[in-house]
Amino acid sequence: MDDTAPPRPPDFDDPFRDRLEDLFRWRRDVRRFRPDPVDEALIDELIGLAALAPSVGNSQPWRFVTVAEPGRRDRVIADFEARNKDALSDYDGEQAKLYASLKLAGLKESPAHLAVFADTETTAGHGLGQKTMPGMLEYSVVGAVTTLWLAARARGLGMGWVSILDPDNIAEILEVETSWKLIAYLCLGYPQEQHLDPELDRAGWQKRADVSSFVVRR
Amino acid sequence: MDDTAPPRPPDFDDPFRDRLEDLFRWRRDVRRFRPDPVDEALIDELIGLAALAPSVGNSQPWRFVTVAEPGRRDRVIADFEARNKDALSDYDGEQAKLYASLKLAGLKESPAHLAVFADTETTAGHGLGQKTMPGMLEYSVVGAVTTLWLAARARGLGMGWVSILDPDNIAEILEVETSWKLIAYLCLGYPQEQHLDPELDRAGWQKRADVSSFVVRR
Repeated sequence: MDDTAPPRPPDFDDPFRDRLEDLFRWRRDVRRFRPDPVDEALIDELIGLAALAPSVGNSQPWRFVTVAEPGRRDRVIADFEARNKDALSDYDGEQAKLYASLKLAGLKESPAHLAVFADTETTAGHGLGQKTMPGMLEYSVVGAVTTLWLAARARGLGMGWVSILDPDNIAEILEVETSWKLIAYLCLGYPQEQHLDPELDRAGWQKRADVSSFVVRR
Repeated sequence: MDDTAPPRPPDFDDPFRDRLEDLFRWRRDVRRFRPDPVDEALIDELIGLAALAPSVGNSQPWRFVTVAEPGRRDRVIADFEARNKDALSDYDGEQAKLYASLKLAGLKESPAHLAVFADTETTAGHGLGQKTMPGMLEYSVVGAVTTLWLAARARGLGMGWVSILDPDNIAEILEVETSWKLIAYLCLGYPQEQHLDPELDRAGWQKRADVSSFVVRR
């Protein structure tokens, strides 16, 4: 009797691949949330799945901060508003008008805020794979964020990634270790709408390009 | 008659979510490939799926370079060997012995090499979302790489991300635009083995941690 037989690798089939493509196509950066709460256990489940992402040297540099305290949420929202006003001043004329009309975050409505940091001083992984490409630690955290995004969408949850923030200010508001660098500030919640196309395409800010123009053969 | 009814959003179910979790769990950084070739059309399909990833300001900064010419592949392999030898000198004693025993890339065996760059000077997206977090352009490319990885695994293909390379040298070998920054050099092919655990964990380099130790509540 072999009690330690390894689990059998899965054999993914066409129906699964089709649904996976649906998931890629319908994932969106969501800024319009319904007020319905999101279970804390569901967020923890998503974090557990995110940690299955690859990481350089198996360094697992991802650090997750759930942000529930109203005072901290308010300070994050205030930071976004200040940074967004500042960004607006970079645009002129019609583009400025369009920028001002865009909804770029759902921080107020989103029932769940999740900040994701990279521990830039982790010794896990012993530096393997980072020497010539030091960005790999941060990239590993982005892989976890991408994984979390897909897992959320597969559960009917929308996610938005807010980058119009001062990362140092956010780290201060959340009182995290000084070695932690903000990679992603995420809003999670049930979406008001579902779309196949990006909101910034629909709003006329930036069209999607044909990917074949981005491929080079060597 | 309504010929322009929008497509119905998919309703993902438990069996799909279970398979998606299998995909996350069985995705691996693969370094041991079978020599079987990979259809060029399959690589193009994966690139098309990768381009469904989110990008800051819808900037779509990903640039894909398929590397088939033997002379270029050989120069990439030589760069890896030099950088890996250099990295080994950072370790001492038992750790150095262990490092030297690790198989850290499958560049020679992999039938398909794919380099992924970020166009750091793209005007697409008009800078939206990058002002306070300039890393967002690179992070967007990482999202595309993560998406490609999952899509590949769902087709039975393994992928390995090689970061023990000099990015400037790789850009020169591949003769790409000077504004393109190397984010990921990828090996693709059919895997010799399938595993639930990372090779670096199995080899004793770095264990997996319990993700709950990486979660903070605020």
